[in-house]
Amino acid sequence: MERISRLFWPVVVVPKNAVVKNVEGVSRSQKLLTELGFVKPAHNGTYQLMPMAQRVLDKCADLVRRRMRSVGGQQISMPVLTPSELWKKSGRLDGDITEFFLLEDRHKKQFILSPTHEEAVTGMLASIAPISHKQLPLRLFQIGPKFRDELKPRFGLIRSKEFIMKDLYTFDRNAATALETYNQLTVAYDALFQQLEVPFVKVKAATGMMGGSLSHEYHYLANSGEDQLIKCNTCDYAANVETTGETNDSKICPFCNSPEVQRVRGIEVGHTFVLNDKYSRPLKATFLQENGKPEYLVMGCYGIGISRLVAAAVEVLSTERELHWPTLLAPFDLCIIGAKQGSKEEKVAHEIEHQFCLSLNGVCSDEEVLIDDRNYLTIGKRLMEAKKMGYPMIVVISGKSDGTAPKLELHLKHATMEVELSEALSVISQYTRRKQKLYSIISESNQSLNISKASFG
Amino acid sequence: MERISRLFWPVVVVPKNAVVKNVEGVSRSQKLLTELGFVKPAHNGTYQLMPMAQRVLDKCADLVRRRMRSVGGQQISMPVLTPSELWKKSGRLDGDITEFFLLEDRHKKQFILSPTHEEAVTGMLASIAPISHKQLPLRLFQIGPKFRDELKPRFGLIRSKEFIMKDLYTFDRNAATALETYNQLTVAYDALFQQLEVPFVKVKAATGMMGGSLSHEYHYLANSGEDQLIKCNTCDYAANVETTGETNDSKICPFCNSPEVQRVRGIEVGHTFVLNDKYSRPLKATFLQENGKPEYLVMGCYGIGISRLVAAAVEVLSTERELHWPTLLAPFDLCIIGAKQGSKEEKVAHEIEHQFCLSLNGVCSDEEVLIDDRNYLTIGKRLMEAKKMGYPMIVVISGKSDGTAPKLELHLKHATMEVELSEALSVISQYTRRKQKLYSIISESNQSLNISKASFG
Repeated sequence: MERISRLFWPVVVVPKNAVVKNVEGVSRSQKLLTELGFVKPAHNGTYQLMPMAQRVLDKCADLVRRRMRSVGGQQISMPVLTPSELWKKSGRLDGDITEFFLLEDRHKKQFILSPTHEEAVTGMLASIAPISHKQLPLRLFQIGPKFRDELKPRFGLIRSKEFIMKDLYTFDRNAATALETYNQLTVAYDALFQQLEVPFVKVKAATGMMGGSLSHEYHYLANSGEDQLIKCNTCDYAANVETTGETNDSKICPFCNSPEVQRVRGIEVGHTFVLNDKYSRPLKATFLQENGKPEYLVMGCYGIGISRLVAAAVEVLSTERELHWPTLLAPFDLCIIGAKQGSKEEKVAHEIEHQFCLSLNGVCSDEEVLIDDRNYLTIGKRLMEAKKMGYPMIVVISGKSDGTAPKLELHLKHATMEVELSEALSVISQYTRRKQKLYSIISESNQSLNISKASFG
Repeated sequence: MERISRLFWPVVVVPKNAVVKNVEGVSRSQKLLTELGFVKPAHNGTYQLMPMAQRVLDKCADLVRRRMRSVGGQQISMPVLTPSELWKKSGRLDGDITEFFLLEDRHKKQFILSPTHEEAVTGMLASIAPISHKQLPLRLFQIGPKFRDELKPRFGLIRSKEFIMKDLYTFDRNAATALETYNQLTVAYDALFQQLEVPFVKVKAATGMMGGSLSHEYHYLANSGEDQLIKCNTCDYAANVETTGETNDSKICPFCNSPEVQRVRGIEVGHTFVLNDKYSRPLKATFLQENGKPEYLVMGCYGIGISRLVAAAVEVLSTERELHWPTLLAPFDLCIIGAKQGSKEEKVAHEIEHQFCLSLNGVCSDEEVLIDDRNYLTIGKRLMEAKKMGYPMIVVISGKSDGTAPKLELHLKHATMEVELSEALSVISQYTRRKQKLYSIISESNQSLNISKASFG
């Protein structure tokens, strides 16, 4: 159990009557996450993650890591510094390089602060003895910092210069097996996004600077989203307008001809690509076929912006004043608020709180309980703050009783109830069981999750 | 359980009769970790961590994280990019900057690829409303990449341009409480290094570019170590020669006057500093005292080079041809080798292996078992390789039997035995229990660990 008094949690105090202006480039999630002490802006477009945010990001990275392992992904780490010469070979330094951070070491050798690692991972495979066809499919991923010299960083963690990505690279023997890999990863992505319980839309995407032949994006829908999507309400066709060419302005679905086409804005949180031999050919990454002859590896890449996903989930779920979290990402499951110092209920409340904490053993993980021990503050003030933070369960122990048994106040997202201790434990236990079930979902076969149906591209 | 056939593990094939030259700047750990497919050199001084190495580093990071939490450490993340202006304020850009990676963004603003984060964390505390004396001591740490433009990167992960560090920053109200913090962290460090079971020496150190008033280093002793230490065999006094000034050449212990002073070489794997107000004063990071007046925070910093520690542990423990690991860092605890394809024992061996794997449930964590299913290779070849990899337990299931019960070969670090299945399980279970005990050591109170006694500075 954590105690708030021991937690480094630099909440920004906003004066009560402050006029809240809508500042351009500042989104709801950014405002709430900054004011509520999750992140601190370090410099224009870079952020420091405070302990609360670190907890949430670690949970998200854990979910993603497990999901990648479930489809045979093996974790590696590649350096942040990639020699530019590798990027010259792939041709990606020939285009617009204004978004790349480039630097030289003391020997005047140039490096790029990697925004992605196709060249690095392909170069690595090219530098070892060619792998055998028996080792395919091969799926390597990493979770770590990426860099982009954004002209206009905005929306906090949603578009920052430094961000945490999961990037998986797949290697197959031919287009057919690469497509099998693509389908397996798509199933894994769908399952992950369902676990997160934030409505998402999956759209056909342009392959852009990555190259390749097939690509989808996963979007969370939000007004602050920077991508324009079209979405058919009849057949669930959905696409990024970038890909639709002349149908751009049309209100007719190109798939089912329905006139029910809607335009929505999305935040891209995941991306999948079949890359074919775009990188393996110029960088000469091969495998050995049965006949002993080398052949170029057929690649794919699969990204999830971990830090962006956390912020985007909050952007979608929260209200103007209160953070709301996906069940599996809440910073704590349960916040306990005790009686105010010096109140006449203080002593009895303290005893009930002690007993309550003991009886949480086995009902709720110790790691998920936060005690708001700032008893110099009123219950009301702490409760309001806890609601802003979006803890899914808040228990107020004021020392009230109905004469025979003590009564606790239990605040859930959509309900508040006065209950006895055993009832509170029962609700918490139910919550924990549901969360565990959600956590262990392996396949995408919708296990009666209460989520919006995902569209297909 | 992992299967080797599914593991990306790019072992370098060294011809049997290859003349092994001692190349300058290449150490034993580097040679073994590269040849045995743990790391791939990416560029001079940067490395790619393959899945085997990632496992080990994750284990090490987990131990360090738990240890930091046990002394109230809270995990955060600070950007890799720190604005140079912060480093100008602290004065650290005035000296020799050849080891810093500096770069500019598109707006010509200069950043440093942080080699350490004193300026960043102090600047962050200066930028928020001053914290209260009630929130002290405050201990913030992160685990992530650091950068140094080394003139001569060498010894693989031991001195690389990009490396993984745990860096903890402490904040206290005055010198006395900062010293208490220092002592608590020292206890935590001692306990961690004892858990790792690699003999270490703790020495008084020079404060160097960090500044401050008190500093110790933790060293692993190795011939390839770049630090010269003196060590008294009578009283356990030990120091980095950098700190000893005129006694540099003396063979007399400055502490007990014994003539038993020895010179040894060490690899620095941990460092502790009291920094006083070296950073908090120029960067104006204060806290509020009881009387409401601000006072400069008294700081400390505490580093552990995670990637270096892993390599240095291997450097110390391994032989010229075989990796040896600290118990808590071995990539897998148990490697299982079955009969060769086409051998007459194949069928019966396969059944025994199946039964053995089932009975490991509850005896050894699934995550810690590696099955060498490359049955097209002889047992001998696989066994030799498993020994090189340093798995603490290797079980060979060849299908042999004494007529009544099947016999397994169990290879431990210092013993080989032919045992029945139940005996093998009993040994593995003992190993697991010892490991769990080692893992859960919280205080440094030496729980009969079989380790060399640590020296004091």
